[in-house]
Amino acid sequence: MSDLPPASLVVVDRPMRGTPPRGPGDVGFRLVDPDSMTIHVTDLGVTRGDGVFEGLGVVDGAVQALEPHLLRLARSAAMLDLPELDLDVFRAACLASAAAHEPAPFLLQKLVVTRGIEGGDGTPTAWVRTAVMDDPAPERRQGISVVSLDRGYRHDVAETSPWLLQGAKTLSYAVNKSVLREAARRGADDVLFVSSDGYALEGPSASLIARFGDRYVTPRTDQGILAGTTQAAAFDALGRRGVTVEYALLTLEQVRRADALWLVSSGRQIAPLTSLDGVALVVDHDETERLGEALVGRRS
Amino acid sequence: MSDLPPASLVVVDRPMRGTPPRGPGDVGFRLVDPDSMTIHVTDLGVTRGDGVFEGLGVVDGAVQALEPHLLRLARSAAMLDLPELDLDVFRAACLASAAAHEPAPFLLQKLVVTRGIEGGDGTPTAWVRTAVMDDPAPERRQGISVVSLDRGYRHDVAETSPWLLQGAKTLSYAVNKSVLREAARRGADDVLFVSSDGYALEGPSASLIARFGDRYVTPRTDQGILAGTTQAAAFDALGRRGVTVEYALLTLEQVRRADALWLVSSGRQIAPLTSLDGVALVVDHDETERLGEALVGRRS
Repeated sequence: MSDLPPASLVVVDRPMRGTPPRGPGDVGFRLVDPDSMTIHVTDLGVTRGDGVFEGLGVVDGAVQALEPHLLRLARSAAMLDLPELDLDVFRAACLASAAAHEPAPFLLQKLVVTRGIEGGDGTPTAWVRTAVMDDPAPERRQGISVVSLDRGYRHDVAETSPWLLQGAKTLSYAVNKSVLREAARRGADDVLFVSSDGYALEGPSASLIARFGDRYVTPRTDQGILAGTTQAAAFDALGRRGVTVEYALLTLEQVRRADALWLVSSGRQIAPLTSLDGVALVVDHDETERLGEALVGRRS
Repeated sequence: MSDLPPASLVVVDRPMRGTPPRGPGDVGFRLVDPDSMTIHVTDLGVTRGDGVFEGLGVVDGAVQALEPHLLRLARSAAMLDLPELDLDVFRAACLASAAAHEPAPFLLQKLVVTRGIEGGDGTPTAWVRTAVMDDPAPERRQGISVVSLDRGYRHDVAETSPWLLQGAKTLSYAVNKSVLREAARRGADDVLFVSSDGYALEGPSASLIARFGDRYVTPRTDQGILAGTTQAAAFDALGRRGVTVEYALLTLEQVRRADALWLVSSGRQIAPLTSLDGVALVVDHDETERLGEALVGRRS
């Protein structure tokens, strides 16, 4: 990491809506030394994975999809019964963290909110960290191999059992990392989660888009999956071209018969699937480039 | 917290098996200021809930079930593909953390191991923190009300889908905390998880023991649940009395017909269920006291 520019780190001191400023200079957050250690060992973020996060792309200095990310953060926080967050403070913190970083074509911001210190006053611990990200272009050209893995839950679990927090972007991501190790054992780059009743869901850190002829389909977000900010931006770009886009229940078998598949996310922007469960797929290079340009080109 | 004695905190510098000491004074861990902040914001423990933990009871200065806890820690770490841990170092760290705490009848130790810093050298971050625990006696006398909640997974999920890490005690415990909030909304104290196919499993931080006549039964641990150290100690105590103990598949309906039910854990030792899903249960006060004495009386 020593040849990379240092990350920028903003600590959010006033994460909750309605907390008055402590003085005229209090904007709710502070730029701090990026190597400062600020998490107490009793923080519920680390002892319980109890909190929420967002990952935001920053391209040529512009934070992408900032408002959708902030709204999703608020939804995740509500699902976890966290205090209502002051999105104005978080918006300014994201912009300040991006501005404080040495200019680079691609940055990734991690916005984290934990439930705070165990036995404390209930104030969340929160920060925004911005660091250099790999250029997504090579993955866009080369594509990725993906394996499908059971997520264990039925596709309707968010409706029947909301306490399982499916659809919230929580800090409890051990499984999202575990499945990547399972993918690597199978010689693959990434994962497509499948519900226990056979529906294709999402990747561990990405949304699925499938093309069937001239229809572009993504799994319905009422299946305990995240509303993808990059997927929404891709559908916006497709809509502007007059292309039909659709949110649907997609079985894994239907996905296998798609004409093209992509995983999209804030970090990688867009990557075409070159194989699924070891079966080679046709890559739609033209659409990958076209969507990739639209996604990378976003300046808000 | 100001009227409680301060916690004791031990940082484990040499968590991995096979790492040589850095010098003659290097025992692998250090007692540090308990309020020191030692977790970096890029630690995968907090950004991904990626790590494992154990909670150990310390009664009259003795760490209870230390070896079973260390073995379970090692099993959890292996399930997460963490480096092999040096259990000798962790054993000594637990004992040192307990010894460093001001004497108190009941202490609780939290042993945490994370995957370490993102992009770092792969050394886990690890510590043992010991703090005062509430006396478990009142809960033992009053009992607890419990609601059953769907855990979303089939009872055989650990076998079919090991990447879901069911049965590992990971830091990704947001759901284990969320279900307690759902229980509170329903006016209950705690939760009994039920598999999507109807089997009673465990509490979010406790094991279930059911008495049917003179048989004592706990759910089989191949259902993606933890092997309870306190449950094992309770079965040992029962076995010494010549009582029949059994690991079995138990449907929720069978559990409802039990003659007595308990949740047992390192923190609370043993608590009888006074109700399940709002239906009052008969409390076996004699057995609760007898098992409670055996559990609290453990000095190893």
